[in-house]
Amino acid sequence: MGPKKGPFKGVIDDFKGRLSCYRQDWHYGFRSGFRILAPTLFIFFASALPVIAFGEQLSKDTDGTLTTVETLASTAICGIIHSIFGGQPLLIVGVAEPTIIMYTYIYNFAKNQPSLGDRLFLPWAGWVCIWTAVMLFLMAMFNAAVVINRFTRFAGELFGMLITILFMQEAIKGMVAEFSVPEGSDQSLPIYQFQWIYVNGLLGIIFSMGLLYTAIRSRSARSSLYGTGWQRNFIADYGVPLMVVLWTALSYSLPSKVPSGIPRRLFTPLPWEPKSLQHWTVAKDMFSVPPAYIFLAIVPAAMVAGLYFFDHSVASQMAQQKEFNLKNPPAYHYDILILSFTVLICGLIGIPPSNGVLPQSPMHTRSLAVLKGQLLCKKMIRTAKEGMMNNASSSEVYDKMKEVFIKMDDKSSANSVHKDLKDLKDAVIPEGNGAERVSEVFDPEKHIEAYLPVRVNEQRVSNLLQSLLIAGCVGVMPIIQKIPTSVLWGYFAYMSIDSLPGNQFGERVQLLFISPQRRYKVLEGAHASFLESVPIKKISAFTIFQLVYLLIVFGMTWIPVAGILFPLLFFFLIVIRQHFLPKFFDPRHLWELDAAEYEELEGLHHEPSEVRIMCAHFFILHIIFPRRLNEAQFICSPEI
Amino acid sequence: MGPKKGPFKGVIDDFKGRLSCYRQDWHYGFRSGFRILAPTLFIFFASALPVIAFGEQLSKDTDGTLTTVETLASTAICGIIHSIFGGQPLLIVGVAEPTIIMYTYIYNFAKNQPSLGDRLFLPWAGWVCIWTAVMLFLMAMFNAAVVINRFTRFAGELFGMLITILFMQEAIKGMVAEFSVPEGSDQSLPIYQFQWIYVNGLLGIIFSMGLLYTAIRSRSARSSLYGTGWQRNFIADYGVPLMVVLWTALSYSLPSKVPSGIPRRLFTPLPWEPKSLQHWTVAKDMFSVPPAYIFLAIVPAAMVAGLYFFDHSVASQMAQQKEFNLKNPPAYHYDILILSFTVLICGLIGIPPSNGVLPQSPMHTRSLAVLKGQLLCKKMIRTAKEGMMNNASSSEVYDKMKEVFIKMDDKSSANSVHKDLKDLKDAVIPEGNGAERVSEVFDPEKHIEAYLPVRVNEQRVSNLLQSLLIAGCVGVMPIIQKIPTSVLWGYFAYMSIDSLPGNQFGERVQLLFISPQRRYKVLEGAHASFLESVPIKKISAFTIFQLVYLLIVFGMTWIPVAGILFPLLFFFLIVIRQHFLPKFFDPRHLWELDAAEYEELEGLHHEPSEVRIMCAHFFILHIIFPRRLNEAQFICSPEI
Repeated sequence: MGPKKGPFKGVIDDFKGRLSCYRQDWHYGFRSGFRILAPTLFIFFASALPVIAFGEQLSKDTDGTLTTVETLASTAICGIIHSIFGGQPLLIVGVAEPTIIMYTYIYNFAKNQPSLGDRLFLPWAGWVCIWTAVMLFLMAMFNAAVVINRFTRFAGELFGMLITILFMQEAIKGMVAEFSVPEGSDQSLPIYQFQWIYVNGLLGIIFSMGLLYTAIRSRSARSSLYGTGWQRNFIADYGVPLMVVLWTALSYSLPSKVPSGIPRRLFTPLPWEPKSLQHWTVAKDMFSVPPAYIFLAIVPAAMVAGLYFFDHSVASQMAQQKEFNLKNPPAYHYDILILSFTVLICGLIGIPPSNGVLPQSPMHTRSLAVLKGQLLCKKMIRTAKEGMMNNASSSEVYDKMKEVFIKMDDKSSANSVHKDLKDLKDAVIPEGNGAERVSEVFDPEKHIEAYLPVRVNEQRVSNLLQSLLIAGCVGVMPIIQKIPTSVLWGYFAYMSIDSLPGNQFGERVQLLFISPQRRYKVLEGAHASFLESVPIKKISAFTIFQLVYLLIVFGMTWIPVAGILFPLLFFFLIVIRQHFLPKFFDPRHLWELDAAEYEELEGLHHEPSEVRIMCAHFFILHIIFPRRLNEAQFICSPEI
Repeated sequence: MGPKKGPFKGVIDDFKGRLSCYRQDWHYGFRSGFRILAPTLFIFFASALPVIAFGEQLSKDTDGTLTTVETLASTAICGIIHSIFGGQPLLIVGVAEPTIIMYTYIYNFAKNQPSLGDRLFLPWAGWVCIWTAVMLFLMAMFNAAVVINRFTRFAGELFGMLITILFMQEAIKGMVAEFSVPEGSDQSLPIYQFQWIYVNGLLGIIFSMGLLYTAIRSRSARSSLYGTGWQRNFIADYGVPLMVVLWTALSYSLPSKVPSGIPRRLFTPLPWEPKSLQHWTVAKDMFSVPPAYIFLAIVPAAMVAGLYFFDHSVASQMAQQKEFNLKNPPAYHYDILILSFTVLICGLIGIPPSNGVLPQSPMHTRSLAVLKGQLLCKKMIRTAKEGMMNNASSSEVYDKMKEVFIKMDDKSSANSVHKDLKDLKDAVIPEGNGAERVSEVFDPEKHIEAYLPVRVNEQRVSNLLQSLLIAGCVGVMPIIQKIPTSVLWGYFAYMSIDSLPGNQFGERVQLLFISPQRRYKVLEGAHASFLESVPIKKISAFTIFQLVYLLIVFGMTWIPVAGILFPLLFFFLIVIRQHFLPKFFDPRHLWELDAAEYEELEGLHHEPSEVRIMCAHFFILHIIFPRRLNEAQFICSPEI
């Protein structure tokens, strides 16, 4: 991503790069056979549940104008388009929280304008999408993606924390609402008598807390002592959707004397009901919007475009971390172009647009790395064992393993293989004497997996399949409607809590509350390097500044209409980070707390790369593989 | 506890031994000043809550004849008598689960006998107590306590596990009962309409689960990163009663539309109401019991006597573990004698008797060890720091510390001090050269506490004070009545779960379900030595036998009247352990799984003591200090 000159330079480069591996993107996917279903299902569940949850939120916030049907449809349509025509197929797209917030602002604004009203909300939103698409198109054209590195960790984590707070706010608001009559309902119904409302609320607490607790517990199943490796992995990977099913089933086991309608369930209309069908003709109403409002749509469009540009690129970046050792080129510019098209389509058919999502995108890459790792490991272990059984010399065993590796990892050059397999070679060949037998401490099942470099099964099939499955969800809405709303509030709380680990900002906030006597405990565990190199007072000052800024952004989202400008505060962070923070913090400390690639650190020229690696290492361990660190050795265990 | 000859030999020896330190038992208590209140309050809360919970259980099982008033009264009266006249003042007495079960059997039997009935239940129970007292008296007279070592860990843990299951059964039964109209209530009351019963049940789930979760979490506060050491210790020590208060307070924050009586609260009558007062005249009704029933009372009396003898002695034994380094002599025989008197008194005034309780007794000793440790540490750290500031030589520093230690630990002989402080001496004096300065790595605050031998503040004041506080509870019954019953069910579940860690039987049951591939994880953590020395198949066979036996005992408690004989199965364990198990298990394996002092192991004569120490060490670490291992270093931190 060097500086690009001339319009469309970045898009064209990206396109050429991806075109060169396009055939193989499909070929490698199909070659994996049924095994590709594991990452596909994993990412499908990780994608579908939030989209359903956001749909319910949107339905509540737009008085039922947009519902789960629309969020699922958008995710499916944009996902199919992106997986076939997009640049980076590891990137997962979907309707995300920022979109919901933006659409809520747009709805609240439109509703209160006499010349728009409920009826012209979607057409006006269509205009917002058109303007957004135009802006994204211009960004792609003028190679805007080169500035993505101006958004440092500082900004990214602040954004992540805002999402965490908004999730929790939604969970709490939803739970409280279970204790009152839903807006617009007939208060005189027997189901809305105090005692039944109260029963509904209490059941809501039980279901949401039950889901939250069991979902969190199921995530830690991987390190459980019980069950086979397969069972543990299954529960850890699919535990959350499993728990949604379990609690939904439990909600049907209530005594028959409890009237139907308690607990409340998803409010979504079926896609084939007239209420759902009317939205799809939104394009023809678009010229009913008064011209002044067509131009006014530029304001929210600028915010949405900025947010999408930021979110889409960061999600893509995190799906392509250096540590994944990807072989195929990125396509930031080209993907923004594709995004501008999908936003346009969504606007015209009256559904909220999708963009690149976190944490699903890096989760996708990771699950594909596990798949590839399993295949590689299995074959290499077999090769090593055969060699060791036949009393081959250690260099013979190593050469055989290398052969297998090169065969399966097509793009490796002899040179890179030498580097990638160095650790493995050192483990196999005792003290550089290749003629001797393999060292006795070498255990193929344990060590091959540990020393094998990460390889990702880069292809488009898993992304396409999961998008098709999301599309399938629209067809099974009657089943999805069975989920109690309280289970979804619990799911929101789960997402909020689950997004915390790995967020250094969150960890630094916790640090504020840890008494000085106990800090050594933090240092004993895995911790970021800044804890040792930056004085605690500086860390605290930096954190408090970030915290105050977060509260300001959060406060801004509460302002009725002007709240739509909250993304401005994020763009302003670029200025703050570049010009304001260096005046108050020692550049070295700032580098440790928030390394920015564009900063040159005098006297530290030998260090940056090392620091970067440490940071990146920490990042990947804690953000991409949260809580999975200790589990690495089981990925390749023979039980799988 | 060698073999005693002649009647009252054991009692007399015990009495003489305790008499010699009787004055000092009071003196040391008062000398500690206000600091004695910390262990007192700690043990008071640990004692009072179960007694209240058992009272509620008994009230439910005896249709309100005996209630919390009686269990609290018994605990207070017996506690006061034991703390003043008893032998081992570290032993805590109270009404415990076995007593409740026995009294329930007695009640159910009496209720269905036309010549006894409800009215003569307490007089008949009085006869049971009289016979029990006689038998305990005979046991004390004939030095029966020497056989207490025939009850090995095997039997003790089986008993512990039965209690765990009974607690959980009580919690579940209680929770289920929240969903139905209480027996004997007027079904037509509006509060017993379906919707309000259902609200009561749902609130029950929320309160009991809430209490269970928060109580478990509060116990782990000690290792939390937040708060000062004082706050962490406070929450860990008093978190459970605190949570009972919190959830009780929450139960008063319900909307005013919820009718009073929801949630249900403790059912206990006030001690000054006529219903409570009538019991105290039970003695005069005792001769109304038909003579045949007077003699029939011998059957339950034999069971109660056996159980009490077992429970009382084991609780006393565990309060006097070798690792506590107690200075004063035990008094097993004499304490059985005192127990026989207190059982008699309780029987005559118509309240259920108390006996030595687990885990409160060892908890009491431990809290007194912490108190003594804090006092010792504080003074010795000050001494060491003064010495180091004045550049004293290391042997001078050590001698000063030794002086402080001897002064505070009156009973130490020069010889024992030398042995007890050896580790500390090695840490202070660098490589045996006492003329040099104190080693730089020596940190008084960290090391003195670590190397200090355990010393217990042995006295009678804390036991007496906590008994008086329990007596005070009877006076504040109106406050105790405010606790919702569901909070108590949650407390039962908490006690059940909290009694598990440290029970090797429970750990071996878990081991049955751990897949072979993950066993290494168990071996990596703290584990009992048998895991390495006994083949897994033997461990499993031993565990399955124990498990089947447990299920038989548990099944027996369900049999309506004959169930009263369940203690027989425990006495039968002595025979099984001594004659049956050695035929199926290698003596070495048996020794590892269940070391019995009376067994001589051929060819292993050099090992037993070592194995014993290992076992005992494991035992004390996991049973007496469950989950507190990692916390030891904070006991002496300057914040406290």
